[in-house]
Amino acid sequence: MVRLKRLTAALQSVTGHADAMLVTHLQDVRYLTGFTGSSAALVVPIRSTPTRKAKRKPVLFTDGRYIVQAHQQTKNAGVVIAQGPILREACAWILKEGLEHCAFDAEHTTVATLDSMRQWIPAKQRRSFFQPVPPVVASLREIKDAEEIVLMRKAASLGCSLFEQILLTGIEAGKQEVEIAAELEFAARMAGAEAMSFETIVASGARSAQPHGQATTQRMPQRGFVVLDFGVLLNGYCSDMTRTIHLGHATAAERNAYEAVLAAQMAAVAAVPPGVACEDIDEAARSVLRHAKLTDFFTHSTGHGVGLEIHEGPRIAVRQRQRLEPGMVITIEPGVYLPGRFGVRIEDMVLVTARGSEVLTPVTKAWSEL
Amino acid sequence: MVRLKRLTAALQSVTGHADAMLVTHLQDVRYLTGFTGSSAALVVPIRSTPTRKAKRKPVLFTDGRYIVQAHQQTKNAGVVIAQGPILREACAWILKEGLEHCAFDAEHTTVATLDSMRQWIPAKQRRSFFQPVPPVVASLREIKDAEEIVLMRKAASLGCSLFEQILLTGIEAGKQEVEIAAELEFAARMAGAEAMSFETIVASGARSAQPHGQATTQRMPQRGFVVLDFGVLLNGYCSDMTRTIHLGHATAAERNAYEAVLAAQMAAVAAVPPGVACEDIDEAARSVLRHAKLTDFFTHSTGHGVGLEIHEGPRIAVRQRQRLEPGMVITIEPGVYLPGRFGVRIEDMVLVTARGSEVLTPVTKAWSEL
Repeated sequence: MVRLKRLTAALQSVTGHADAMLVTHLQDVRYLTGFTGSSAALVVPIRSTPTRKAKRKPVLFTDGRYIVQAHQQTKNAGVVIAQGPILREACAWILKEGLEHCAFDAEHTTVATLDSMRQWIPAKQRRSFFQPVPPVVASLREIKDAEEIVLMRKAASLGCSLFEQILLTGIEAGKQEVEIAAELEFAARMAGAEAMSFETIVASGARSAQPHGQATTQRMPQRGFVVLDFGVLLNGYCSDMTRTIHLGHATAAERNAYEAVLAAQMAAVAAVPPGVACEDIDEAARSVLRHAKLTDFFTHSTGHGVGLEIHEGPRIAVRQRQRLEPGMVITIEPGVYLPGRFGVRIEDMVLVTARGSEVLTPVTKAWSEL
Repeated sequence: MVRLKRLTAALQSVTGHADAMLVTHLQDVRYLTGFTGSSAALVVPIRSTPTRKAKRKPVLFTDGRYIVQAHQQTKNAGVVIAQGPILREACAWILKEGLEHCAFDAEHTTVATLDSMRQWIPAKQRRSFFQPVPPVVASLREIKDAEEIVLMRKAASLGCSLFEQILLTGIEAGKQEVEIAAELEFAARMAGAEAMSFETIVASGARSAQPHGQATTQRMPQRGFVVLDFGVLLNGYCSDMTRTIHLGHATAAERNAYEAVLAAQMAAVAAVPPGVACEDIDEAARSVLRHAKLTDFFTHSTGHGVGLEIHEGPRIAVRQRQRLEPGMVITIEPGVYLPGRFGVRIEDMVLVTARGSEVLTPVTKAWSEL
C-alpha cells in the first residue's frame, strides 16, 4: 500500500491532469501488487474525479490462465479476468469509470500498443487521452524498502554460498565451462532459486576476454583465467556477482591486470557513500585503470542498479549525474579485456546505506591460483 | 543472405518509400545476422538511393562488451562498436549515408525510444523520417527454413529425452516440485542447452489447476496429477512440451478429464494440414472438450508458434483466420483446470509439412499412473 501511495504522489508531480496510470511492465505490476503472472495490466487511479468523490482502488487485469494465482497473490488491487485482450478490457474499464486522462510509461509501451489503445477510445476523447510519463515505478524501485533489502540480502547471500561451493569442488582444467554452469545452476535450484537472473557466464582462457562469454562446451585450460559471472533469482529478486580465478601459474601481465582491476573495484566500492554522483563512482574505478594503462581495455560501464530486474537504475557510468541514495543496490564491476589474450572482471553487489555502504557479496576477491 | 533478401522483398511491399529498416528486436537481429549479444541494432538498407547506386551492406551496431563476439558471429553485415548509445550511432550512420526514410518495427519500439530517435534527426527531416511497419521479421520467422527445422528437431528431441529420463527416475510422492525442475534443468545443461526456454512448470496435486504453476517447494502428493511443462533453449531455439501423469490411483473424474484432454489434443493435431485456419485447429480441440462438458475449464488458447522465442506467431486461438503454412512449428496444448481440484494439459510441438504435419515431440501421451 505504501508503494502505491508513493506512486500516486510521484504521479501527481509528473502528470498534468491524468486521473489514472496504466502500469504494464510486469516487474512494476509485481512491485505494486505482488502478482507474478506473465500477463498483467494494472490501472492505478490517481485522484478523485468530478463524477466520483472517493478514489477507486487499483484494478489488475489478467487472463484465464491466472484465475487462481491472481486472486491468491494480488494485494491492494481488485482482480479482473479478461475475456479478450487485457489492455482492451483495461481501457474499457477506464472509460466506464469516467476517467478522462490516462498516464502510461513511455519506456515500456510500444508504438504499436499505444496505437491499439487509441483505437479503443472514442474519437472525440482520443487525442489527449493517453499521456506519456517517464518510468515512475522504475524510479521508485531504485530505492529498495526494508522488505526488499531482506530479499536482496538473501539472493546475494545465496550467490556467495554457491560461489564458495563451486570454488571448492567445481573448477578444474579439462572440465567444460557448461558443466560448471550446470552444477552451479542445479545447486541454485536446490537452494530455492526460481531461476538464474541471467545466462551464466563461465569464460575461460582466451574466452575470458569476452565480457559476456556465456558458458560453452570449451574445456578449462591448464593455464589461464576463468571468469565466473552469475546470479540467482530468489523470491523475485536478482543477485549478480563476478569472480575471476586463475588456473595454473599466471604471467606477470595477467597478475598485474588482476591487481589493477581489484584496486579499481575496491576504489569504486570505497567511493559509494550516499550523495556521490554515479559518474564519480565510475571515475573512481576508471582512474585506477588509467594509471595502470589499462583503461582502453575497460570497455563497459562500472555498474548498474539491481533488484526485481538484473539491470535497473541507476547507471554507474560516465556522464551519469544522478546521485546515490540510501536503499539503492548497485553493482560495481570493472573489468579489462585483452582480445585474444585474457580478461578479468570483479563484481560485488553494494547496498547504499545512510552512512556509507555495505557489500552484499563479501566473498574473497584475493588473487587465487587453483 | 536469403533471409535478408526475403526481408528486403517483404519491406518493399509494406513500406511506402523507406530506404532502410532499423531492426532492434534481438531475436530478429540474431535471425538475420547470427549475432547473439544482448545489445544490438541492425540497419538494413532496402534499395539504392539517388546519391548511391549500389545498395549498401547491412550494418550491425553493438557495444564494447561484444567486440570479439560481434566480429566472430556476424554474417552478412558490417560491425560497428558504438561508443555512445547504439541507436544514436545507428541514426547518425543512416543520416551520413544519405538515407532519407527509415522503417522501424512498431511492435518492438517503445514510445520513448522513438521519441529519442526523432531528436537525433535534423528538425526539417524529422517529421517523416521514421515509418512504423508491422513486425516483418517476425512474419518471416513464422516459417522455418531447413536450417532452422534441423535445430528445432534437436531442441524438441532433447526435450523428449529429458522427459523420458525424469519419468523413469524423478517423479515420486514426497519429492519437492522444485527438485524435479532442478534435475531436469541440470540434465538439460549437461546435454548442451544454453538455458530453459521458460520457467519450468511442475504443478502437482491441486496446484495442477494453475496453468502456469511454476515449480515450488511443495511436495508431490501420494495421489494426484503432476503437470510437467518445460522447454530447453538449444542453439538459440526453444522446445516446449507438456505431459501430465498421475501419482496413485485416480478418481473417475480425473481419468475422464485426462482422456477428454488427450482426445482434444489429438483431434487438434490431426487437424493440422497446411491451408487450415488457426481458429479451426483451436475449434478442433475445443469441440471435443465441449462434448465432454469441460470447455468452461479450458481457459486459454490451443497453441502458438515457437522458434527463437517461446511465443511466436501464429496464434492457435479463436478468431485467428491466419492459415497454416509448411515450415511453421506450433504447439498444440489444450488443458482443463478445475480450481481447487486438479488440472490436466498435454502439449506437443508440431511441424507443418507440405503434405500434413509431423509431431516433433513423439513421447507417449497414454494415461500413466505412477
